Amino acid sequence: MTNHVDIREVALRDGLQIERPIPLSAKLELLTAVAATGVLEVEATAFVSPSKVPSMADAAELAAELDNYPDIEFSALVASPNGARRAVAAGLRAIEYVVSASDSFSMANVGRTTAEATRQIGEILAIAHDSDVTVEVIVATAWDCPFDGPTPPQRVVEIAAAAREQGAHRFSIADTIGTATPGRVSSLVAQLSPVIGDIRLGGHFHNTRGAGLASAYAAVRSGVTRLDASVGGLGGCPFAPGATGNIATEDLVYLLTDSGYHVDVDLPAAIAAAEVAKAIVGHDLPGALLRAGDRIRI
Amino acid sequence: MTNHVDIREVALRDGLQIERPIPLSAKLELLTAVAATGVLEVEATAFVSPSKVPSMADAAELAAELDNYPDIEFSALVASPNGARRAVAAGLRAIEYVVSASDSFSMANVGRTTAEATRQIGEILAIAHDSDVTVEVIVATAWDCPFDGPTPPQRVVEIAAAAREQGAHRFSIADTIGTATPGRVSSLVAQLSPVIGDIRLGGHFHNTRGAGLASAYAAVRSGVTRLDASVGGLGGCPFAPGATGNIATEDLVYLLTDSGYHVDVDLPAAIAAAEVAKAIVGHDLPGALLRAGDRIRI
Repeated sequence: MTNHVDIREVALRDGLQIERPIPLSAKLELLTAVAATGVLEVEATAFVSPSKVPSMADAAELAAELDNYPDIEFSALVASPNGARRAVAAGLRAIEYVVSASDSFSMANVGRTTAEATRQIGEILAIAHDSDVTVEVIVATAWDCPFDGPTPPQRVVEIAAAAREQGAHRFSIADTIGTATPGRVSSLVAQLSPVIGDIRLGGHFHNTRGAGLASAYAAVRSGVTRLDASVGGLGGCPFAPGATGNIATEDLVYLLTDSGYHVDVDLPAAIAAAEVAKAIVGHDLPGALLRAGDRIRI
Repeated sequence: MTNHVDIREVALRDGLQIERPIPLSAKLELLTAVAATGVLEVEATAFVSPSKVPSMADAAELAAELDNYPDIEFSALVASPNGARRAVAAGLRAIEYVVSASDSFSMANVGRTTAEATRQIGEILAIAHDSDVTVEVIVATAWDCPFDGPTPPQRVVEIAAAAREQGAHRFSIADTIGTATPGRVSSLVAQLSPVIGDIRLGGHFHNTRGAGLASAYAAVRSGVTRLDASVGGLGGCPFAPGATGNIATEDLVYLLTDSGYHVDVDLPAAIAAAEVAKAIVGHDLPGALLRAGDRIRI
């Protein structure tokens, strides 16, 4: 088991998605603060419907700025082949395609059932393949759906099998509404590991019910080597009632490094980026280290 | 490994300690709400200096009311033989004696070094023995001290060995300033287990840096079967700068039961008790389920 965990910073996309749209200049200020943490992967934006997610309407304009941060691999979230085409045309080198494991959430989100969204993986891959773009399949509502209740693990396993069969490069599981707990995280990871083979498994957790960091750590202990996090704990999902707060990057960095894991993210720089995020959105953020500081500051 | 975890509710003591003193009637209102959760162990108060901890000045008056809750085992915290005598005289059947593993914290807290406080365990046990009272030795600053930095695990091991040798009935480790993380928790528990033998090991965690629940879960996975928690996440320690927020009882119950563990505490009743705690102290509390609700309420 490796003791290095890759952190993907998602404040720019998942973090800002639920917020009122902010100017591109403010996003770039946040991105500059995020880049200073040393993080190597950043979810930059989403190529989705501007009417449904107005905060991401500037996706192409933001994409045009990303060459200024050559050390970072940027990804963008898409929910359809059309979004994938827009992301590739804008120059993104990595796209995330979301498949909701529950039909009701999938219908509410993209107007397609889980099976229909799963069948589109091949089309997304074909679009990406022509431009040598990496594709990650992310399973939303991997543990619970706000409408359908608990997600049968077999539904996630089936999406994973389809993603692998069709040649997805990466695969992640997302606790979209912040209900997962360490026991169920370990259980699902154990069921997925033999299915995804050598595809790297990522995890995306929200701290809505306080268990986000515990779930993230359980994922790492079970073999997950990539975790999404957002400086300050910025963010949520506008389509999931009550779902607020990604796990905070700085809290995750503190927990992982203090527990003996290596990450690429510098802790004081992450706290500084969380302060920038807080100033940009103009309200308090839930990250714990924003209030308590790390041990050095006690 | 058992899959039952005993939760001790500490809102009445650790929860209220840092708050302005509240009337006894308000404490009894909170206690009644806590009793309704089904919890079997409650830390009721502390027999310490009223001038240093004015919120606990009514310890004897509160103790006189505890017979009204016959299903609950109540404990009280003490920091000296004199406190132990007061607790026993007030009718408590269980006392917690705190030994800080760092000299600076111990000196600041009780004016004695760790070694001096450890040597008093025998005196405390003698006081308790005459009345058949249970004694728990709690190690404060078991992982980090706000003044001395990281606590060498060997210091905790030595207190544990002394506690066992002198006949303590229970033993707990406390993350007094909320800096512990799952990796270090698992490590310390592993080092303590052979030392304490058949004494049950408890854990006390604060969520100050977001890692409280992750640490608590790591403790359980490592063999800890007793955890302290406070409804709403009420509480902190007035002598530890920046230390706020016990892990919230309702968040812990959600995490543990969803992960397959059994507890005696009812989740909706714990959320209701957290609401009572919030009303009594008159300010927001950090517990996550207070805002998000459990899954049923999504």
